[in-house]
Formats: sequence, C-alpha cells, structure tokens
Amino acid sequence: MSVRPVRGGITTPRGFRVAATRAGLRSGPGPDLCLVVSDRGPVPAAATFTKNRLRAAPVEISMRALRSSRGRIAAVVANAGCANAGTGSQGLDDARAVQALVAERIGVANRFVFTASTGLIGSRLGVEQIGSALPELKLSTGRRADGEAAHAIMTTDTVAKEAAVEVDLGHGRTAHVAGMAKGSGMIHPQMGTMLAFLTTDAPIEPAALRGILRATVDRTFNQVTVDGDASTNDTVLVLASGAGDGPEVTGASLEALAEGLEAVCRSLAEQIAADGEGAEHRIDVSVIGARSDREARLVARTVAGSSLVKTAVHGADPNWGRIAAAAGRSGARLDPDRLAVRIGSITVYDGAPLPFDERSASRALRGKVVGIGLDLRLGKGSGMAWGCDTSAEYVAINSEYRT
Amino acid sequence: MSVRPVRGGITTPRGFRVAATRAGLRSGPGPDLCLVVSDRGPVPAAATFTKNRLRAAPVEISMRALRSSRGRIAAVVANAGCANAGTGSQGLDDARAVQALVAERIGVANRFVFTASTGLIGSRLGVEQIGSALPELKLSTGRRADGEAAHAIMTTDTVAKEAAVEVDLGHGRTAHVAGMAKGSGMIHPQMGTMLAFLTTDAPIEPAALRGILRATVDRTFNQVTVDGDASTNDTVLVLASGAGDGPEVTGASLEALAEGLEAVCRSLAEQIAADGEGAEHRIDVSVIGARSDREARLVARTVAGSSLVKTAVHGADPNWGRIAAAAGRSGARLDPDRLAVRIGSITVYDGAPLPFDERSASRALRGKVVGIGLDLRLGKGSGMAWGCDTSAEYVAINSEYRT
Repeated sequence: MSVRPVRGGITTPRGFRVAATRAGLRSGPGPDLCLVVSDRGPVPAAATFTKNRLRAAPVEISMRALRSSRGRIAAVVANAGCANAGTGSQGLDDARAVQALVAERIGVANRFVFTASTGLIGSRLGVEQIGSALPELKLSTGRRADGEAAHAIMTTDTVAKEAAVEVDLGHGRTAHVAGMAKGSGMIHPQMGTMLAFLTTDAPIEPAALRGILRATVDRTFNQVTVDGDASTNDTVLVLASGAGDGPEVTGASLEALAEGLEAVCRSLAEQIAADGEGAEHRIDVSVIGARSDREARLVARTVAGSSLVKTAVHGADPNWGRIAAAAGRSGARLDPDRLAVRIGSITVYDGAPLPFDERSASRALRGKVVGIGLDLRLGKGSGMAWGCDTSAEYVAINSEYRT
Repeated sequence: MSVRPVRGGITTPRGFRVAATRAGLRSGPGPDLCLVVSDRGPVPAAATFTKNRLRAAPVEISMRALRSSRGRIAAVVANAGCANAGTGSQGLDDARAVQALVAERIGVANRFVFTASTGLIGSRLGVEQIGSALPELKLSTGRRADGEAAHAIMTTDTVAKEAAVEVDLGHGRTAHVAGMAKGSGMIHPQMGTMLAFLTTDAPIEPAALRGILRATVDRTFNQVTVDGDASTNDTVLVLASGAGDGPEVTGASLEALAEGLEAVCRSLAEQIAADGEGAEHRIDVSVIGARSDREARLVARTVAGSSLVKTAVHGADPNWGRIAAAAGRSGARLDPDRLAVRIGSITVYDGAPLPFDERSASRALRGKVVGIGLDLRLGKGSGMAWGCDTSAEYVAINSEYRT
C-alpha cells in the first residue's frame, strides 16, 4: 500500500502555514476566522464548487480568482458565522474587500487569494471585524494550529474534521496530503460538503491537480448525504506547494498521489457523515454488481439518503424492504430477482426474502457505523456512499437554527 | 366554472358499487379490504404506476390486466396490511389468485380485475383470508359505503381521503368525477401517492382517458412529497362507466372532464400532503415566471421536499434562505437577481433580502396551510407542489413502523 494515514492536519504537507482567531462573526466562543498561506506564494490549486444556482458571493469571487490566476493560489481565508449568500452585489463587494485585505497582508495580488464562508444565509459579512482580526493572526504549523483552523470553520458541527496521509510516490520519494472540512447539515451531492481545504507538498501541475481532484470528489464528497439539501457555499479546494523534492509527479506517482488524495477526502467524508446533524450512527452503503460505477454510486447515495432507511436505522429496525425500495427508485438498472441485500454481515434478501435472525440484524444497526450492502449482480460497477440516521434531534436542530 | 365540488366518494359517478370489510390482514380494527365494481362489466380504464424498479406483484398483475384487456376493467380489489412487494414469484401467484377469486365472484374473465395492495413490504399476502372475506362484501353505493372503502386502504394515514365534483360538459350534459386515495409516508414523485382510485360516469374512450389521466397526474399526484421515498406499489387508476347519457366526450366536453379530473386529483393530493406522517402543516408551493411549466413544477417540488424548508416551517422560522437555496439546486434555470420569494402574503426576498416583519412572517408559518410563493421572472411557466412540515413525530413513526 502506497498510502499510510498519519496524525496531522492542513500543515502536515510542507510549504503551508495556518492561523485562526475569533473575529466575532458569530455568537459563542472559539475561533471563527482562519487563514491558510503558502510559503512560496502562488502555488497550483484546483477546486470544485456548489452546483446550486444561488451561489454565495465568496464562491463567485473564488471562481474568478482561480480563473484569472490560471489555477494558482497563495492564501485561503475562511470564516464561519455568515455565509455571505443571497446578499446581492453588496455581498460581492464584501467578499472582494476581504480578499483585498488578505492580499495586502501577505503581499500578493488579489487574484491569488481564495475566500470561503459558511453560516447564516442573507446576512451581511462583517468586513470590519475581519479587517480588525487579520493582524491578530500568527501563522504557524503543527497539530495545534491545524486544529484551531479546523475549529474556525465549524457551524453546527460537533467535532473538527481533519485527515492526513503520507504517500509513497516511488523511487524513494514521498509526499503528504492533508485536509480539513466542515459540514453537518445541508449536506448532499452535489457537493457532499460545505467546505474542505486540502494541501499537498507534491510537485504537480494545475491541470493534473484538477483531474485527480474531480475524480476524487465524485467518489467521496459527492457521495455524502445528511439531509438532501445542497448549500450555496460548498467548496473543495486543494493546494499543491511543490515543497517536496524532484520533478512533477506523473504516471504511477500521480496515481499514488491520487490515492492519497482519495484517502484524505474519504476520511473527511466519513467524518462529515458521522457528524450529521442529530445523528447517532454513520451509515456506510456499499454497492457492487451494478452496470457501471456511476450507477453503483447512484444506488448507494439513494439508499444512504432515503428518509425511510435513515429512520429505520435510527429505530434499529432491519427493514430491508425500505433499502430495496430506495435502490429500486434510484434510476439505476436493477432486477429484484437478482438483487441481494445485506445488513451488517447478515444477508436478508437474495432474490426473495430470506429468514434471518432479527435480533442479530437489529444489533448490527446499533453500532456507531452501520454497514449496508447491495449486490445487483448485473455487472462490475461498484461504489460507496456515506450517510447517517435521522433523529428527532435533527428536527429540533433545524426547527430552531437559522441558517 | 364548469367544475363544482360536491360531497361524495367513489360511487358518486353512476355505474359503480363498492364494499369494504375486515379480512384480518393487519392488526387493529377497521376494514382492510375493499372492492369497487362496475355495474356494466368491463369499462374504459387508465392507470399510472410507480417508476420504482422493485414493483410490487399487484402492480405487475394490474399492468398485465390493463394490457390484455385493452384498457377495460370491471372490478378493483385493494387491501391494506400487506404490500405484496419484494415477494418474488410467490407474490405474483398470490396476486393472481386474488384476481381470480374476484373475477369468479363477479363473473368476468381474470384480465378485467385490477388489484392493488399497500402495507408491509416483504411479507406474504393472506390469500385465504381474502378468499374468506370476499363473500362478506355487500356491494352498495353512497357516502357510508364510499367512506368504508376509503378507510380500507389506509395505513399510517390518519384520515380517509375522498373527493368528488360535478362537471358541466356543455349542451345540458353533466358528468361526475370522484375518487379516494391513501398515502402518508413513502410519498414522493414519481408518483405522488401510493393508491388512488378514480371514477367517472362520462362516456369516454380508453385512449382519451389515458391522455387526460397522464397530464393530470403530472400536475397533481406527481407534485406531492412527504419524505422523498417512492414506493413499490404506487398506483392511480381511473374507471369510466359511461353511465351518463350521450355520445363519447370529445373537444370542449373532454376539456371540461379533464378539469374535473384535475380538481379531484388535486383535492386528493392536498389531503395526502396534509396527512403526511407526523405533519402539522400542509405546505403549498406556488411557482410562476419559470422558463416552462415543467421547470416551475421542478422548483416547486424541490422546495416542498427540502428537509431544511420542512423543518423551518415546523419551527415557524421565516428562513427564506433555505427556500431560495432549495430553488437554486432544483436544476431549473434561476437568476438570484430576479428571484422573488413570498412567505404567506409577505415578500421576503426580491433580488436581494428585504426588511420584513419577522413576527407576521412567523405567524404565516403557523397556519394549517402554509403558502410559499416564488417568482423566477424568466418566463411564463407556472406550477404547484404540495408538501408538509417534518416533525419529531415523523421520525418516531418511521423508527417504529415496519413498512
């Protein structure tokens, strides 16, 4: 295996520093503003954004930055407490002002600064508060700084989400990939998270970076569902410092790096699913035997997103009928006579209902992580999706929380 | 107006009789089996069915019946307590056995009998129980018999759902359209309900009947959403006895009849939305100014189906950001700068956030029926969707209920 998980966060790859502080953009304690800076100025960057047509101002500004800088970014500024979405031209001005403040602070042109926001839709961004807080930010590296940054982008998240790996690129070379993410509600393809920032020290061209990011996001963040709602601010960004030695990664090295990126994104995706608003269980849906990987992923995320499956898991009810019915409506080809359904390690349906031990199946549904498997027996396509159970707590959180 | 609502049910149109009884297919009191019979033997019929690939046995059998009878049906037998879905070839044999029992009872060939089931997925249908109960069924007409039949198809429904109208066909002719439906959970396009049976006494050809049914279902049942889950058994059937006088309806008379059918289906759709599992409010979403009616309906049902909108309504939170964000991810063309959003009669967003009285808006969200309006200002397309709020009760019902 060329990918090895390590303890770490956004500055585990060489070439990045990070800082977080409290700008006062939301009530309650803790940091709500963070800054990630590349030591070498603008470096190759790639991003994917929400498909929602009500795009937040920072998404617009960051898309333009990536375009005009031809995929090179020197710093990322992110805040919680205000999404700066649904704010019209004022919102664009505000996002641009924050971008300019950060560009000035680190001495680069505006187009090299990427901005992201999360929190309440429709309220105005506190540009002055951010302006006053920026000088407070002391850039550094290491677990503590990484953790504070991961905290600064949390909204209804109950835990900070970080992941890091070391990748063997071959020929005695190694690289690191790491990331942090936030996401708990309004989580659904496309995209699977609100914000994720990833770093690597591998030397890589922007085009190659874009290629591996897109494929990875399809298999990871786009397969996470909490409540079916796609947000206005969803952003995944990867920065490649190139601080590692040697020539740009290509061929087998690029494949190894892509594996590392996928491992980090998958870990963050799992952490988001587990921290779904009000959730007590993460639900991992694994599909094999589909006509294609695309159809397998479609089935997996339809099952993971089904309200009836989510409530059945909450009630520890081994209700395979709901799993099969969700798969049946996904749009993918499916033949009920060939279908097999598994709850934990217990096969409960195999072309027809099977007698099974309800107590064991119910026990499989009480674990922190609940595994659901489907074999469509139609082809070689496979895929995963991650979700969580729906609890009364989800309803309470979202009846009272003003996004 | 050529359509006038009247008090009535499935036998309000002339030419039909109905009966219901308790066959013991589910626990608890009340009828769980009903039979609708045409006085004139096989009459024109049209139906739409679930798009779920895990189709229940009665859906398969009824599709075949309609095909082989060339759109003529003499009787409908429907039961609650068992969906006869996910039951393999045994399920098909059981549905065929029930079809044959009813065909024998009323003296027609099997292909003229339509069957439908709702309830638990994966358990075997009690054919013997149905066989013993059939002789008990005393066919009649009128409000009481209609109401018992509507009760016999309920599962988690809390109220029976019926509607009837009188249609002025022109030239001094009138016709009636009526129906009953069940549906409370596992409700989402396609289709918007689990079961709906409609009758009319208008003389009409099967092809014309199919045409007006399909258009109506797209505008009504396919626009109802409770929880995003499409079931294995969804069926809408309309029977036309032709018991009314005169020649077959065409032209303006057919348009009037279509209007009547839409009024009945819309009323049943609204009743289903209002009776969504655990719901306290019906949510009516009205969209105008879309590029097409299809896009308007898409926006309407995405908003009505959004978990975050549903929980915001539950909490009486005038959170327009969630409404706009749901519209934004629907897939329809939308321009945030032109969009207007209304909660009740209060415009809360018009290209940009508007100051509004939060208390009045919150009050508008406390009514039995909550109106949400969107004007996209891009074209002339309009459409409606019906949904309901999500309560902790929904989670409780579905954590404990075995479908």
